[in-house]
Amino acid sequence: MTITIIGIGLIGGSMALSLKEKGLVQRVIGVDNNAAHAHQAITLGLVDECATLEKAIDESDIILLATPIGAAEKLLPIILDRVTKQVVFDVGSTKHSICTSIAHHPNRKRFVATHPMWGTENSGPAAAIKNAFIKKATVICSKEESDVDAVALIEKIYGLLQMHILYMDAASHDMHVAYVSHISHITSFALANTVLEKEREEDTIFELASGGFESTVRLAKSNADMWVPIFMQNRDNVLDVLNEHIAQLRKFKACLEKENYTFLQELIENANGIRRILKN
Amino acid sequence: MTITIIGIGLIGGSMALSLKEKGLVQRVIGVDNNAAHAHQAITLGLVDECATLEKAIDESDIILLATPIGAAEKLLPIILDRVTKQVVFDVGSTKHSICTSIAHHPNRKRFVATHPMWGTENSGPAAAIKNAFIKKATVICSKEESDVDAVALIEKIYGLLQMHILYMDAASHDMHVAYVSHISHITSFALANTVLEKEREEDTIFELASGGFESTVRLAKSNADMWVPIFMQNRDNVLDVLNEHIAQLRKFKACLEKENYTFLQELIENANGIRRILKN
Repeated sequence: MTITIIGIGLIGGSMALSLKEKGLVQRVIGVDNNAAHAHQAITLGLVDECATLEKAIDESDIILLATPIGAAEKLLPIILDRVTKQVVFDVGSTKHSICTSIAHHPNRKRFVATHPMWGTENSGPAAAIKNAFIKKATVICSKEESDVDAVALIEKIYGLLQMHILYMDAASHDMHVAYVSHISHITSFALANTVLEKEREEDTIFELASGGFESTVRLAKSNADMWVPIFMQNRDNVLDVLNEHIAQLRKFKACLEKENYTFLQELIENANGIRRILKN
Repeated sequence: MTITIIGIGLIGGSMALSLKEKGLVQRVIGVDNNAAHAHQAITLGLVDECATLEKAIDESDIILLATPIGAAEKLLPIILDRVTKQVVFDVGSTKHSICTSIAHHPNRKRFVATHPMWGTENSGPAAAIKNAFIKKATVICSKEESDVDAVALIEKIYGLLQMHILYMDAASHDMHVAYVSHISHITSFALANTVLEKEREEDTIFELASGGFESTVRLAKSNADMWVPIFMQNRDNVLDVLNEHIAQLRKFKACLEKENYTFLQELIENANGIRRILKN
């Protein structure tokens, strides 16, 4: 089979590498409006060739939409206008907006909305790696709105990538990822800004920064072009979680101000409950 | 030489393992008011024997004070009352309070105040590991207040542990660690509480949680008995950084509320500046 990867970055590039290695696809066509990325994707062996969107769609069996989510939402109706029997899937971090935008498209059923829960703080073709995705979760949203054969092919792809598939509706997905992904990015961005604002002696931070600091601010390296549209599309859920998070931080602040160390102890012991949820 | 480790947990236990392996000490005496931990430390081979504080001091060349910082501050004058030529050092996460507390002790100069910048979210003897500390930073505070031979021995110890030594006064140390360590723990505790409070579907979080979430909440597993005294002792610095952090989070909140995505993009791009500071 032939796959087109639209947006050859961390996710699209990593997926291309795996699907070719697994033998599911023999030919990978790249589509990227960034000429440097397109060139780099060929050099790195992520794709066999690059083509225009139209040519790529016509010559493919599978179309993976892996651009930032704002661009994906603009491209999806254009792609669906052109597909006949091809299967189209996306990998965006929000699902409600894109699903709603093509809800009444005549070719809606050729589209499968997905979100593989893997990424790093790096982006672009050079960030793509082999053997990504293994043992991570992926979400397929509202599968009943897609053709059975389209869902089956996407399930086969995620099976080959050794991912664990969860099924949920788009609105539930967006609420859950606000908790387990989007808020982590905001706290990390804000923590980086706190340190950069208050601590001018950067060399000292550099020297002192231990593993704990690095792990909490690592996500602050993440790309703004990817994250602004995510926060924009998932604004209500993110605001809801962010308000709760600020309220939780205020409890720590109040404990310190009032020197209420008994309650501080309780807050920390409650937080230790996260051990129930974390795998490692 | 013989070393006494008072408080045989993550740090004390890991240090005992390394110093014996490096051949600096031939005998390790453990002192721990938790009988189960004392027993476990012997079983795990972290210490050769356990003893009372008095006996341990009398038979040692080096005394490592590795309890939570509240206990350390209570024990240090008692230890200094008894030492003659021994060298005493601590590894606590705050330095100003403990240094002030023994500033006028006649044996002050036998004490070296230190803080190795390594740890994990785990605690107790079972958490101790070999080859900890390598290539991490450690701080020696106010070295001019310690005897030259005492500082030289501690420098030798950290050299054997392959740590990079920084020198600063206790007050500066406490301010810097509020930025690079203490605030990370508070944000992580608060983030864990946010998710546990708002997201009742724990199975869903468990399934969806990706590496990014795990890395930002990992520190929330940290032990309350260790951290409450740290926040207590470093209250002013921690409150200062916490206030700034809440102010930074409010900027993200305001961007979302006002749908000011241009400023949101700027906030994220500014946060990306943390790449300058992080080693990896």
